Amino acid sequence: METISTNRSHGGVQGVYTHASAVTNTEMTFAVYVPDREDDEKLPVLWYLSGLTCTHANVMEKGEYRRMASELGLIIICPDSSPRGQDIPDDPAYDMGQGAGFYVDATQEPWAANFQMRSYVEQELPALIADEIPAADMQRQGIFGHSMGGHGALTIALRNPDRFKSVSAFAPIVAPSEVPWGKKALGRYLGEKKSAWRIYDACALIEDGARVPEILVDQGAADNFLDQQLKPHLLQEACDQAGIGLTLNMRKGHDHSYFTISTFMDDHLRWHAARLG
Amino acid sequence: METISTNRSHGGVQGVYTHASAVTNTEMTFAVYVPDREDDEKLPVLWYLSGLTCTHANVMEKGEYRRMASELGLIIICPDSSPRGQDIPDDPAYDMGQGAGFYVDATQEPWAANFQMRSYVEQELPALIADEIPAADMQRQGIFGHSMGGHGALTIALRNPDRFKSVSAFAPIVAPSEVPWGKKALGRYLGEKKSAWRIYDACALIEDGARVPEILVDQGAADNFLDQQLKPHLLQEACDQAGIGLTLNMRKGHDHSYFTISTFMDDHLRWHAARLG
Repeated sequence: METISTNRSHGGVQGVYTHASAVTNTEMTFAVYVPDREDDEKLPVLWYLSGLTCTHANVMEKGEYRRMASELGLIIICPDSSPRGQDIPDDPAYDMGQGAGFYVDATQEPWAANFQMRSYVEQELPALIADEIPAADMQRQGIFGHSMGGHGALTIALRNPDRFKSVSAFAPIVAPSEVPWGKKALGRYLGEKKSAWRIYDACALIEDGARVPEILVDQGAADNFLDQQLKPHLLQEACDQAGIGLTLNMRKGHDHSYFTISTFMDDHLRWHAARLG
Repeated sequence: METISTNRSHGGVQGVYTHASAVTNTEMTFAVYVPDREDDEKLPVLWYLSGLTCTHANVMEKGEYRRMASELGLIIICPDSSPRGQDIPDDPAYDMGQGAGFYVDATQEPWAANFQMRSYVEQELPALIADEIPAADMQRQGIFGHSMGGHGALTIALRNPDRFKSVSAFAPIVAPSEVPWGKKALGRYLGEKKSAWRIYDACALIEDGARVPEILVDQGAADNFLDQQLKPHLLQEACDQAGIGLTLNMRKGHDHSYFTISTFMDDHLRWHAARLG
């Protein structure tokens, strides 16, 4: 792990790091915020997964999480949303390829060699954090994210309920199998056999028996992507059927941007802190 | 005034606007944040002037001012730091030309036709705001800024003590006549006659009799520009001699970045709100 930058902020240190990933076969960059702490104190770890087009930097610059993370004593980890590089497969569209990893392990060409974001976020990066960030208490992890990253957070939490004690999302893609962004990406990363998509679809995972105790979602009511891509009512229906406690806040006048995320960031950090102890 | 974007955030609306400036002879872009308010309620106006290389967007994205501005009921206005455009004079250096207007009215070629940032920030933009933002109470204005924009805030407040009821700065250039950034910019915008620089130098203005009752400055102790460009002790000496109450906070471990500005943003907003009523 190599340090790109560290900056003192809000009673902690915001770091940016790179490492050679064995699962994506690229250099991967990520951000870690560590609040000041007593010697040897361990702090809970909260993963933030970003949306389409974003790197680690978008939420680091615009998410406004440091003040409250410091107050609550939460480590915040922000991975990139895909492998990147000149020699890495890409697509001219913003919703496919670099910046659009969808937190899946691709099985199709040309993506399979690098686009292994499920394994990266679920396995490789947590192992690195456990080794390199002594403050990180890997027994207390939560996960959240935005849009495509909300999809990532929900599906990773649903597949790993023992590891993640808390999950929330801003404007998540809740049923990628049913919406244009998801159909395109899952089809091309995983092939057209829809049965292979279900472990990457929050609503399908719940239908198939995956469970978390509760979920917090904040969704802008003025979000341009609400009706076509996000469809939070599908998550509401799946949670109702499964007995999962979903807190779904529809936020009047709010759109899909970081202006919305930053507004409700404090609420989400408090949600996670209350469950991570 | 034309609207570029509006986004709901933290109980208010963040807008970005452009207009044709008659003093810079360019389109100028600026950001205005207006908290929700009662009908016809007027709110104090706080000007934020940005540093070298910045547009209106840097503080809008990284400054973390909206939550507290909304809580305190402050309108925040963020102008650009210079005129911009393909046909506008520029310099390859980051500290001269576009992105480096230094809040002066240039008298030298090729700058004089466009680089009139003093008149723009002191006269033209306030008149536009008074016309176009009905919530703005122009009887209650404060001003702050960062680095070159801290220099702008200090000098504008010192020249207009009746208009600005509060002033503060993050890591300001306090004595541009004495430091490399300032000598270069003032020399090229104003000519080599140093007497013409004094109205654009906070310490010289104070020496020459300009007064404000008090100033708040937050300065990172780990700021790379501290010793060569910023020299806050010069402002301390000038204020001590003049009987101006300077609160100068040296912040251990903090650098020149928005990671520092955002950390102390709440303190500055409270400082201004307390003085703007």
